[in-house]
Amino acid sequence: MLNPEIQKNLIAEGRNFIKSFSASPYDNFVSDQQLKLPQPPLVKAPMTEQALPLPRNFEDLDLRQDFIALLTERRSSRVYTQQPISLLQLSFMLWATQGIKDIRGKSYATLRTVPSGGARHGFETYLLVQHVEGLQPGAYHYLPLGHQLEFLHAVEDLPAAISLSLEGQSWASKASVVFYWSFLPYRCEWRYGIWAHRVALIDAGHVGQNLYLACAALGLGTCAIAAFDLAVCDALFGLDGEEEFTVYASPVGTISPADQKSEKAFYQFVEDEGL
Amino acid sequence: MLNPEIQKNLIAEGRNFIKSFSASPYDNFVSDQQLKLPQPPLVKAPMTEQALPLPRNFEDLDLRQDFIALLTERRSSRVYTQQPISLLQLSFMLWATQGIKDIRGKSYATLRTVPSGGARHGFETYLLVQHVEGLQPGAYHYLPLGHQLEFLHAVEDLPAAISLSLEGQSWASKASVVFYWSFLPYRCEWRYGIWAHRVALIDAGHVGQNLYLACAALGLGTCAIAAFDLAVCDALFGLDGEEEFTVYASPVGTISPADQKSEKAFYQFVEDEGL
Repeated sequence: MLNPEIQKNLIAEGRNFIKSFSASPYDNFVSDQQLKLPQPPLVKAPMTEQALPLPRNFEDLDLRQDFIALLTERRSSRVYTQQPISLLQLSFMLWATQGIKDIRGKSYATLRTVPSGGARHGFETYLLVQHVEGLQPGAYHYLPLGHQLEFLHAVEDLPAAISLSLEGQSWASKASVVFYWSFLPYRCEWRYGIWAHRVALIDAGHVGQNLYLACAALGLGTCAIAAFDLAVCDALFGLDGEEEFTVYASPVGTISPADQKSEKAFYQFVEDEGL
Repeated sequence: MLNPEIQKNLIAEGRNFIKSFSASPYDNFVSDQQLKLPQPPLVKAPMTEQALPLPRNFEDLDLRQDFIALLTERRSSRVYTQQPISLLQLSFMLWATQGIKDIRGKSYATLRTVPSGGARHGFETYLLVQHVEGLQPGAYHYLPLGHQLEFLHAVEDLPAAISLSLEGQSWASKASVVFYWSFLPYRCEWRYGIWAHRVALIDAGHVGQNLYLACAALGLGTCAIAAFDLAVCDALFGLDGEEEFTVYASPVGTISPADQKSEKAFYQFVEDEGL
């Protein structure tokens, strides 16, 4: 067990981090933007020389359109039936979470399907694809400017790699695709400096919520994961862990109403312990 | 200007906070849940003796139902026309952001319209109401278990109070209602301890995103705010700043297509500086 004093201090530090933006040392902060230092790129450059255009005919999707029902039926699903999803479904999820709608100025900011503090949008999207029609399994990177996907490399034993990356949560290894979002801190620090990190975590929630709702609209299941093996995830996509590192993850899979009982098994302890 | 060394250290601390969950001291953490300590309440107790039931006839709302259009047209709006909104509209926004759909176990967890790590749902919702049909202006607290609202107190000069609470962002003072979400850390620390705070910020993003989409569906405008005056916000609702403190805020107002030019004025600097 962790030393109670250390544990107490870490909890105090956590609370303070959430509140820190209002502390006095922050008052005199000057950002690199104010110093007129060059702005970092809006998106990461392609990592390969081949980009696969993603379909945009979202109107052909059989989306659930009742917004109240989307909110009501959005839930976390951990039991997947391992069916393939279509490329159009994947394309829609990528657009719904990080799609670019417009650019402000010449290259000042992207406007996306999610809000981001100061329109900084400090994330990149990576995928481990298992069962997507028309895609070979492996690791991918989303190119939001052109709404394209690039294949990075094959991954040996994908189910094991997924499970390992998510701290052994083996249910996720049956996902059709796993989303991993990285954070590039300087993209936000350039404007917000010491305030960037708190805001980035909130922004990650915006992204995750849109994936949940997109899955509800598509009839797919997801379960966002904040606890993953950072080093393993970063290594999967070649992230350096300092200027870019994994911040959030969500497996997405096909689901069946017949699996409600298995879903409930994840919460058996609530009944067992009489909570 | 802040000492560059301090500034550099604060930025390093911010990056580390996002990554800290994977650091080795965290491995031996034991939570209060594991120690079988009593669980804190799922929601805050009512702060007054009068609770106003909120209407639930959401099917009577004229909601935009096209999910693709909701995602496309969701944007941040900072120019409000100061018209009243209906109590049903407000009720829908409260339900869409923190509404309780079910309870797991006897009192183990609430299932809500947003996901939360471990279903901890560490937030409370407070409002400053200016123009909502049937509500006297002032400060309110949402009671999610019964989907009720309680009036806390009147606020002198509401527009000034809103502006002051949001670091002088005076555009927000024309909102019909301002949402302020507080965080009660122990509700999450009981289960997640030192991991609670990072997850709570992501969870705040889930909530904020649902408010954005609810506003898009209702034809209202919002703009989430991560930079506010913490002490002023906490004082508005009587939060102690330690066991409960403000974490996120969003003004909501009526909007008009005629104000697109005024909206763009907030980004005039992009053009001025040739960015």
